[in-house]
Amino acid sequence: MTLPDSSRGEYRRARREGRPASGLLLRNVRPLGGSAVDVLVRDGRIAALGAGLPATGPLRVEDGAGALLLPGLVEGHTHLDKTTWGSPWYVNDVGPALADRIDNERAWRARTGHDAGAHARALALAFLRNGVTRIRSHVDIDTDAGLRHLEGLLAVREELAGRVDIQLVAFPQSGLLVRPGTAELLDTALAAGADVLGGLDPSAIDRDPVRSLDTLFGLADRHGKPVDIHLHEPGELGAFTLELILDRVQALGMQGRAVVSHAFCLGAVDERRLHGLLGRLAGLDVALLTTAPPSRPVPALRACRQAGVTLFGGNDGIRDTWTPYGEPDMLARAMLIGLRNDLRRDEEILWAFDCVSAAAARACGFADYGLEPGARADLVLVDASCVAEAVARRAPRRLVIAGGNVVARDGRDAPA
Amino acid sequence: MTLPDSSRGEYRRARREGRPASGLLLRNVRPLGGSAVDVLVRDGRIAALGAGLPATGPLRVEDGAGALLLPGLVEGHTHLDKTTWGSPWYVNDVGPALADRIDNERAWRARTGHDAGAHARALALAFLRNGVTRIRSHVDIDTDAGLRHLEGLLAVREELAGRVDIQLVAFPQSGLLVRPGTAELLDTALAAGADVLGGLDPSAIDRDPVRSLDTLFGLADRHGKPVDIHLHEPGELGAFTLELILDRVQALGMQGRAVVSHAFCLGAVDERRLHGLLGRLAGLDVALLTTAPPSRPVPALRACRQAGVTLFGGNDGIRDTWTPYGEPDMLARAMLIGLRNDLRRDEEILWAFDCVSAAAARACGFADYGLEPGARADLVLVDASCVAEAVARRAPRRLVIAGGNVVARDGRDAPA
Repeated sequence: MTLPDSSRGEYRRARREGRPASGLLLRNVRPLGGSAVDVLVRDGRIAALGAGLPATGPLRVEDGAGALLLPGLVEGHTHLDKTTWGSPWYVNDVGPALADRIDNERAWRARTGHDAGAHARALALAFLRNGVTRIRSHVDIDTDAGLRHLEGLLAVREELAGRVDIQLVAFPQSGLLVRPGTAELLDTALAAGADVLGGLDPSAIDRDPVRSLDTLFGLADRHGKPVDIHLHEPGELGAFTLELILDRVQALGMQGRAVVSHAFCLGAVDERRLHGLLGRLAGLDVALLTTAPPSRPVPALRACRQAGVTLFGGNDGIRDTWTPYGEPDMLARAMLIGLRNDLRRDEEILWAFDCVSAAAARACGFADYGLEPGARADLVLVDASCVAEAVARRAPRRLVIAGGNVVARDGRDAPA
Repeated sequence: MTLPDSSRGEYRRARREGRPASGLLLRNVRPLGGSAVDVLVRDGRIAALGAGLPATGPLRVEDGAGALLLPGLVEGHTHLDKTTWGSPWYVNDVGPALADRIDNERAWRARTGHDAGAHARALALAFLRNGVTRIRSHVDIDTDAGLRHLEGLLAVREELAGRVDIQLVAFPQSGLLVRPGTAELLDTALAAGADVLGGLDPSAIDRDPVRSLDTLFGLADRHGKPVDIHLHEPGELGAFTLELILDRVQALGMQGRAVVSHAFCLGAVDERRLHGLLGRLAGLDVALLTTAPPSRPVPALRACRQAGVTLFGGNDGIRDTWTPYGEPDMLARAMLIGLRNDLRRDEEILWAFDCVSAAAARACGFADYGLEPGARADLVLVDASCVAEAVARRAPRRLVIAGGNVVARDGRDAPA
């Protein structure tokens, strides 16, 4: 990799003009396992990458010691507001049905006064220590809690801006039509700053997919916001609902601004049906989010790539009333995606890494992403020889830089 | 838990007779999350458990500080001889078929002179630091390598005796009938000290299930050794081979001395067929080993428990030419078993823990196992409130005691 002329020019100009070359010079790192380079960071962005960049002026210099350099990792789907992170162990005694889990959570929150903002903040900072600098989080909106969780999360989003870039999805966890008043709350949530409109099982939960989706897409269209719809519905039911979703993406011209999360149905329909649906998803640039759960059918990563469908990764809930599992580590999630899709060759494991980095940034619309000049300087140094090793070993994060600032070292917050 | 009278009596007698109460007193630990007790260890065994045991004489006293106490963990199925543990990253560029992987490994070992003993030792010690004190390891026996891997592993088994208890399975990884001369090598291996006779896909690999199984069971019977057969064969083919295996267990009276590893077929046959096979497995006390792979059908833990079939857990290969994944940590494997079987309630996660502890010890025939007086003092202290938390969080091991000796603290070898 060589220093691009434009960056080099700007860098020289700053020196010529006697401006302090303030910023950070990261020496001797291997971008995605390539040859060793230095990375020059200025004003929170990557200014240049190249061998032997000069350290001039009051630059802070960090020795990368040949570590693997990754871009800041991306969490494509979590529920920061639900986590018990930072609390004592939550003893799970919940029934097995989706409705059991939804009802239990709502009751638990009412009973315990769970402070969504405080837990979300703790979890987001734990993500950051593991090199995650962009997070899409769904936030429950329901007629019991109103906008309380969103308000907590909006404050966290603002506090952590510049370190972790948080997108908030207004999510009707208890259903949209089945709980009257929810659509109005979602409307308010979008006006109040939610970035994306969420949805949930228009057939299985809302029991009226057409009216549910028309309501949802109507809101999204009015606010000019993208959608991200949880679709747990199995087999042909899910495939049917998916078609209804795609019809509306097409009708409203929302190409590139719609995500279907989970889409378990795509792991259960037959080959021919799958290819038809993947073809339509690719044509409409609708992305799929997977957590790669080992116990459910999932959209196959190989088939999605072949069809040109963006599949990206997320943890879903982390240690909440739904699940005791999970950790704020996107390399661990990439490992699970690799295991679920039986990716063993190094070159295949790169696909799993793509799910928690570039593909996730693209699908969620996180701007200025990557390891190129001009991108936000979100840089992660990892003790591993290559990306495949980093994923398979969930290799320790040696250094995390967010927006050009060193924020964590060896899993601990770095002093400002 | 109270101090059993017999132990208390013996303990008092020792004190009365002025014998030094040599041993170790572990204070304030919570066995499997129960009430806090002390554990007295003498001569490498648990002598007593109870509240407020007296510390008399030259006892070494360890403060457990209320930590969760687990029995030493059990690895029920790994391949210590195959690992690249302790070597630089192995770049995986192997084809997808089973035969590709078998051939690639044999060629790689011939090319690199892989020292099975040295890598096995490094991996076994890494297991021990994570609280694993019993390991069943398959060891490749083939007409290229002969008994070389077994010889290396026998030396490791002897060196680590008293710390990690290693069972060795003589395993025809390249096939039994298809590589003439292998049966004779297995015969020699059993005479040389292999504990168990292994097998591999009598239909899919050996192409003649009856002759393959007759050869295998003939050898096992002659040596009076148990069997542990890898059965990757899918669906009805695997179910057919499984029946042939069960016929021979029955005919030879090998109840309680046979394990079928993987048994993917049991995750693919229909409900009625499954129940028939599970009923027969339970009746013949044949145990099943699972790694709970997310990308393959697996025997369901819930169904096995309901049918009275022992299902236990193992990692299979860890970072070898087959797979880049895996780590020497049975709590991590229990977590994957939990995820694969969608175990979310605390009480269900105990089932996953059982797979890497008591059930594995029972299936493999590891003696003197558990947290009862008389058992070998293999004790693991974990920073977690309960077993479910330890599994879901892969909680750090604070202290590992093997055969009554402290062997590791916070993941590092403890000084002798």
